Amino acid sequence: MAAVIEFSRQNIRQETGGPFAAGIFEKESGRLVMLGVNRVMPLNCSSAHAEVMAISLAQQKLENFDLGAPGMPEHELVVNWRPCIMCLGALMWSGARHLTIAGSGPELEEITGFDEGFVPDDWQAQLALRSISVTDNMLTEKAVEVFYEFAKSGSHVYNARQGS
Amino acid sequence: MAAVIEFSRQNIRQETGGPFAAGIFEKESGRLVMLGVNRVMPLNCSSAHAEVMAISLAQQKLENFDLGAPGMPEHELVVNWRPCIMCLGALMWSGARHLTIAGSGPELEEITGFDEGFVPDDWQAQLALRSISVTDNMLTEKAVEVFYEFAKSGSHVYNARQGS
Repeated sequence: MAAVIEFSRQNIRQETGGPFAAGIFEKESGRLVMLGVNRVMPLNCSSAHAEVMAISLAQQKLENFDLGAPGMPEHELVVNWRPCIMCLGALMWSGARHLTIAGSGPELEEITGFDEGFVPDDWQAQLALRSISVTDNMLTEKAVEVFYEFAKSGSHVYNARQGS
Repeated sequence: MAAVIEFSRQNIRQETGGPFAAGIFEKESGRLVMLGVNRVMPLNCSSAHAEVMAISLAQQKLENFDLGAPGMPEHELVVNWRPCIMCLGALMWSGARHLTIAGSGPELEEITGFDEGFVPDDWQAQLALRSISVTDNMLTEKAVEVFYEFAKSGSHVYNARQGS
């Protein structure tokens, strides 16, 4: 998680995208398969969230659309906050079996202005129904520091229209 | 919509992906910007749903991550069924202002076995909060015919684990 948070920080400091990073790791060995960072603005692609980048690139590397395919080690998605509704769906389809996040509270939306969509209160139970477990609150304060740094930078928050 | 449904049919007949197609159109003129079809299995990418393909390719063509950017005509996403939770999120981030679908009932999941995720009952109201309007039930029967054709084909339904 520390590496993922550091990449989220570097992604705003280097002006290469939004304040998010994600990694696909092998659950048991902890081996990194692929890191991804938010690339929406530089790639002109609103779906290029860190989670979608990490999942898609890991699937390219492993040459399989299913990270939970038979014979494969279990994979986990590590990300510096609770995924938005698009990325929760992407996780559901990815075949990853575990999600580790630095936090899931309102801090992200409050500090940065991003709209995370209509995530239901029972999202963890919904993932559990699909055999995806969740570890929350890992290095929370360090992740929040990056959101404050992003907010202070005055960077553009894309598509947070919310009624406009 | 007829063209989108025909592409969804050809995508299974040509064995180029799942039974889904989507298009980004200019709302007022009806001009097609980009068509996309489900490419999950051939691309080894679980996020390559028709909606994400159409949105991402349209954004590449228009060189903008925001299909609702100032100075642009309003865009709509046309798709042959209610998007899954990932694609509803992708729509929310895309900047498109309207969604037209052939149907939104349980038929898709019942006939094909796909898991559309934890879509809340008030998803249309949630989109409306973000200034995205919805037209439902356009050529419903024709869309459902394709799902039956897919189910009969015995094609693989990926990642519909639902607890396994």
